[in-house]
Amino acid sequence: MDKSDFKRLSRKQIYQGKVINVVQDTMQLPNEKESLFDLVQHNGAAAIIPVDSEGNILMVEQFRNPVNDITLELPAGTLEKGEDPLECAIRELEEETGYASNDLTFLIKFYTAIGFCDEIIHIYVANHLEPSKQNLDDSEFINVKPYSLERLIKMINQGKLIDSKTITGILAYKQYIETNKN
Amino acid sequence: MDKSDFKRLSRKQIYQGKVINVVQDTMQLPNEKESLFDLVQHNGAAAIIPVDSEGNILMVEQFRNPVNDITLELPAGTLEKGEDPLECAIRELEEETGYASNDLTFLIKFYTAIGFCDEIIHIYVANHLEPSKQNLDDSEFINVKPYSLERLIKMINQGKLIDSKTITGILAYKQYIETNKN
Repeated sequence: MDKSDFKRLSRKQIYQGKVINVVQDTMQLPNEKESLFDLVQHNGAAAIIPVDSEGNILMVEQFRNPVNDITLELPAGTLEKGEDPLECAIRELEEETGYASNDLTFLIKFYTAIGFCDEIIHIYVANHLEPSKQNLDDSEFINVKPYSLERLIKMINQGKLIDSKTITGILAYKQYIETNKN
Repeated sequence: MDKSDFKRLSRKQIYQGKVINVVQDTMQLPNEKESLFDLVQHNGAAAIIPVDSEGNILMVEQFRNPVNDITLELPAGTLEKGEDPLECAIRELEEETGYASNDLTFLIKFYTAIGFCDEIIHIYVANHLEPSKQNLDDSEFINVKPYSLERLIKMINQGKLIDSKTITGILAYKQYIETNKN
């Protein structure tokens, strides 16, 4: 199987929204048949694991429309078109948590919903946090709360952390800490 | 902050695709302002960590349109509307890998892209695999390959596994194995 066996014959514009653009692709498959694929295009996002001087992780509480509930997540934000994910992480850390850092280390990146969406989330660990100023726009309502890594791992096992970037970020950070200890 | 401070005033239907439905919600925020939110609705999916008699994990290679490339992932499939995720996992395991199992254990579930999409992926560990028959529809082209857990962890650290369900599933499975050993 080779990717050249799959050919995009056409792309139809469906919907331009605020953070997503939806297109419909007609693909030719290896058996020469044609098939339609919906594709949600997204600029991507950056998430941050902000580690304070006591080793706690700053988490954010916010309302999420898809869940219709308040969630607890890693701070994160959407990339501007073509933006460097590290720049986005530095900005979103300060805007959402009110702490600044120039000590960010890339941890992991991944496609969130690879079946139908091209969004990539880039996750960074931020150390040496300096108090700055939270800067939310008037549609953002965010509470910041510190949690120990142990407590967050327990919350993952209890099903209390519910989104891919938060779970993946915390599990990858645990592994990163353990590897760097040895 | 309470979820009742966020009210959906209206929902506009935008696009019904094969696996996604797109709507646009007008929400009232705690400051009484109105804001538009795009929402991608999805039935959800089930993914499987199929563990063979030697402890290897059966992975699937397939073409992915959003990436325009061949990827290596955990086997997975989309839920029928209202389908029990466990039923879906049992079906997709057999269809995609050609192995059947009745020994599935729930591992973890999560929202893939919680900012704009309601898709939940449910991940199960499948043991006691029995050879059956791969059953792909004529738009599916899938190769099945066994990998050791150690190799998959290394591939995550090298950035060679790229999607949320595969990375989260493998990291959560490693933790599950380690916890059950002790």
